[in-house]
This record gives sequence, structure tokens and C-alpha cells, in this order.
Amino acid sequence: MNQIPDWQDVTAAHERIAPHIRRTEILTNDALDAQTGAQLFFKCESLQPPGAFKVRGATNAVFGLDEAAAKKGVATHSSGNHALCLSYAAGRRGIPCNVVMPHTAPQAKKDAVIGYGGKITECEPSTSSREEVFAKVQAETGGDFVHPYNDPRVIAGQATCSREFLEQVDDLDILVAPIGGGGMISGTCLTVSSIATNVQIFAAEPEQADDAMRSLKAGRIIADDAPDTIADGLKVPLKELTWHFVSRYVADILTASEQEIIDAMKISWKRLKVVIEPSCAVPLAIILKNPDIFAGKRVGVIITGGNVDLDKLPWT
Amino acid sequence: MNQIPDWQDVTAAHERIAPHIRRTEILTNDALDAQTGAQLFFKCESLQPPGAFKVRGATNAVFGLDEAAAKKGVATHSSGNHALCLSYAAGRRGIPCNVVMPHTAPQAKKDAVIGYGGKITECEPSTSSREEVFAKVQAETGGDFVHPYNDPRVIAGQATCSREFLEQVDDLDILVAPIGGGGMISGTCLTVSSIATNVQIFAAEPEQADDAMRSLKAGRIIADDAPDTIADGLKVPLKELTWHFVSRYVADILTASEQEIIDAMKISWKRLKVVIEPSCAVPLAIILKNPDIFAGKRVGVIITGGNVDLDKLPWT
Repeated sequence: MNQIPDWQDVTAAHERIAPHIRRTEILTNDALDAQTGAQLFFKCESLQPPGAFKVRGATNAVFGLDEAAAKKGVATHSSGNHALCLSYAAGRRGIPCNVVMPHTAPQAKKDAVIGYGGKITECEPSTSSREEVFAKVQAETGGDFVHPYNDPRVIAGQATCSREFLEQVDDLDILVAPIGGGGMISGTCLTVSSIATNVQIFAAEPEQADDAMRSLKAGRIIADDAPDTIADGLKVPLKELTWHFVSRYVADILTASEQEIIDAMKISWKRLKVVIEPSCAVPLAIILKNPDIFAGKRVGVIITGGNVDLDKLPWT
Repeated sequence: MNQIPDWQDVTAAHERIAPHIRRTEILTNDALDAQTGAQLFFKCESLQPPGAFKVRGATNAVFGLDEAAAKKGVATHSSGNHALCLSYAAGRRGIPCNVVMPHTAPQAKKDAVIGYGGKITECEPSTSSREEVFAKVQAETGGDFVHPYNDPRVIAGQATCSREFLEQVDDLDILVAPIGGGGMISGTCLTVSSIATNVQIFAAEPEQADDAMRSLKAGRIIADDAPDTIADGLKVPLKELTWHFVSRYVADILTASEQEIIDAMKISWKRLKVVIEPSCAVPLAIILKNPDIFAGKRVGVIITGGNVDLDKLPWT
């Protein structure tokens, strides 16, 4: 199963998922350009029907199943967006979806899973707990395991985002996305290494969950069990498939503090008029603090999701 | 000056302002369609560079001035969005802009005016105070008065929004927009009565500032001096030019309570992932409470602006 996906997998995925996803809009903003000295282009995956880029990989996995496998449904563990996107995709195909989520996941994400017809089993907010609880759930249901990122079908699906981005904006110098488990970044690496080798890829990570940055420096995967950050989508560690891409194609991984992430989130809401979750603000945070890297460049930023508890905003 | 604008004025305005405005995106959302029973299309004028549709009319007025008039600049009074959009347009042409704003206007809007190079003089939050203070400011500066809505150049500019909407979405049955002074609704009337006479127009108004609804029922303009509503953009009364359009072409004016507006605002943020101000939530509020009118229809909703104080959200 865990083969390295290639460009043919990406084009096949794009055709498969096209009826179910949105070719998301690109926003620009003069004030943010002035503030950063860069030309910024924001691809708003937050505008996907279930509010996050993960709909791409999840839909690719669900609609790629043969009929026999599809009958048993799908199962996964996720901090949130993958869970609700897999529920969305399974709902569109009319098959069962079981998800294991930490009980600390944002209520907005839990509500969305249930709204799409997914079934939630809660676990503790640590990698070890989620893997343990998941093993039980999968044994009971027999659903096809769609890992949130360490799955070639998922990475090929996420790669369709950067493919669209390169079609929508000419002459990008840099692409930036947040990094948690590395699914979106790996998809970006797959696209860029296939069709745009001149584009640099930077990954953005919370200081308080900087295992990917330390992994890149160490030359091997370093996994933290339960890092704590407001960027709730970025707490999970790299796995072998995403490490394959990250270790080969990422120019650098840059980090931002909790306060820098909150500030960038608020600036995004104010300037771009879009609701984005904390994880998506990490790229703007690193762009703001590293003008030596980004100023003067045409920079594509992937806004990964917009599922946030409106009753628990970090600045109120 | 106060001639009734016609369709030729609209097409001329569209050509004049095209380099300065965004052809804004249309969003759809399955969950909101399910909730309302309608097919909803949201045109996001909140994504205009200065965050509001009023950039259309303001830019049309500023770039339509001859050189001699332009040198003296422009002046206006406004609860906020017209002020900052006029400052934006004046800034792009490099001419002075003086605005009178109530001291109670959202800080986000005041900051934006100043950011674009406009000069603010504050007044009390009543129509009489703003008109009195404005007379003084205009006498001192001699700038061309660009009324926020009772100006044919402004109405022709706002009409370009519904023109785009009709190009972007086929077979709309209904268009809905909020009504304050009536600039956007008048522009919508101008477009629809010119090129899409089968489309019905509904205006959405806060119960606590329902002077337009009462005017329509009475058959004459009824103006309140200082209504109080969270929808800060909708406190101003109709004037003769907007009354011309509203009285002839609006199917009905429907109202929503403060709580209904807040609920619709929060639903919009949650479902559409866009930051919209309270005034823009009134259309969704009336759609939610009037399924007898809207269910089963293709309904276009104009999201008029996204300039909101993120530190003062009504549900926190």
C-alpha cells in the first residue's frame, strides 16, 4: 500500500475528485503585500465544501475503492479536518465512515463529522492513544484505513491543490504551507518536483510542535507524542511517506511562536476577510518574520482550512 | 446633478472602474441550501480591496471627475464603508479626501480611512449632526461632494455589482441585498429593470431601523434621525434618488431582529468561512425566516462588506 505516489497518480486523482471539490479561489491583498514586501497569493482551501484541503486526499481514497471494499466503508484517526473531510467524501459515496478523534478536538470539527454522517469514537489527545483506540475501532468495523497523511492516495489527492495553484498564478517563486504530518507539503513536493522544479517549498510549523523542523535538521524522523499548540491541525508527526518527500524537496522549515500565529490569524481575518483556523496562519507568520527570504518574491500561500470554534477565538 | 442614472451610465461606470475593483467571487454552500430550501449564491463584495461594494460607486465618482474638479478632491459623510472606499479611490487617483464619520463608527473602518490617506472629522451619530458637520467641512475644502448613495454616479457604480452577478449565475429568480440609504438596492433595481426584468428584488432591513419598510408601505420617504442597530451600515434614510428606484422596482422589504441578524452573521462565518459585517447578515436572516418566499428559488445574495471590529464580535 505505501508506495510512493507519482505524477500519474496526481492527474488520475484530479480527474476522480473534480466533481466533488471546489477549484478554490486565489486572494491577493495590497496591504499584506506592503507589510511583507512580497507579492502574496492565497489559495483558499478553507472554501472547500467541508472547509479544508483534506477533502482532496479523502475524496481520492473514497472514490478509488472498488465496490467490495467500499461496502465496508472507511475509517481513520484525525485531529479533525481529515475526519470531517473523510466523512464528507464517504457521505457523497453513501458508505460508512468511522473516525477516532481526540476529545479535545474543536467542537466545530466534531459537529461537522456528525453532520456529514460520520461516527466518532473519542481518544486522549496523544498519538499513542489515538493509534490504540483506532486499532480497536478498525478491528470492529473492517473499514478501509485512510490515514490522514501517510497514504499515497491521500498525498496524490493533496497534490492537486498545488497543481491548480500553478495553473492559476504564473511565475511563483515560492510555495508555503503549514506542516503537521506533512500530507499537504508532500503533495506540494510531488507537484513541484514533477512540473515546476524552479519553485521553492517552505514549510511553516509552530515552535511548540517543531518536530518536523528538528527532523529535517537531524536527517531522521523525530516524533513528539503530544505537543501543545493552538494550531490544532499540526500536532501530528511525520511518517515514512511524508518524510520521503519532506527530506528531499523542502527548502526549509521555519517556525512561529503561539503569539505570532495568533497575530497572523487575526491579520488574515482583518485583511483577507476570510475565516481561517490557527494552523493556516503559520505560513503568514513565518513570512512576516523572515523578510530576508520572502521579500521581493512571488509567494503562493496555501490557506488550508477554516474550521474554527467561533466561540473560542484566541484574541477574545 | 441628481439625474436618474440609466443603463448607459452603468456600462460606462463598469468600464471606468474595472481596473480598480475586483470581479468578486460567488460562493455556494450545501448546508445553507439544505437549511433554507433555496439555492443560494453569495456574491462576496467583502472581498473588494477596501472590503465593501461601495468601492464601485466611489471609484466611479472619483475617476469621472475632470482634472480641475479632481484637484480640489472629494468629500463625504458616511457611517463607514463609503468613507473608506472613497478614501481608497481618491488615494488611487492621488487626490484629497475629507470624510465626516460618527464617532461611534467601528474602529476598523476609521483605521481603514486613515490607512488610505483620507482625513476624518467626527460627528454625533445622527443624520442631523453628520449633515451639519459636513457642511462646514465642505465649505472649508471645496471638495466634490460624493454622497454615499443619493448620487447618480454612485448608484450607477453600485449597479455594476448586480450586472456581474447576472453574468456569473444563470437563471436567478431573486436578488437580495440589505437596505440602508438604498444605494446598492437602487443599483440592483437599475440593472434588473434594464436587463433582467424577470428577477425579483427583495431588500433586507433591521427591525430597529425599518424606515425603508415603513416608507414603502406609506408611499413616501419616512426618515428616522438616529435608529439603533448592530447593522451599523444600515442606519441612514432613503433620499429622493434611491426612493425613485425602491418605490418602483422592489418587490418587498423584509425585516429581521437584532438576534436574528447576529445568528445569521455567525452562521455565515461558520458555513461560508468569510468575515462579514452585521449589515450583510440581514439578507440571510430574512431568507431563513421567510421560506414561503425563498424556498425552491435560485436566490442571489449580495454580501456587501467585511469591515468588522474583530475585538467586538456580537456573540462573544
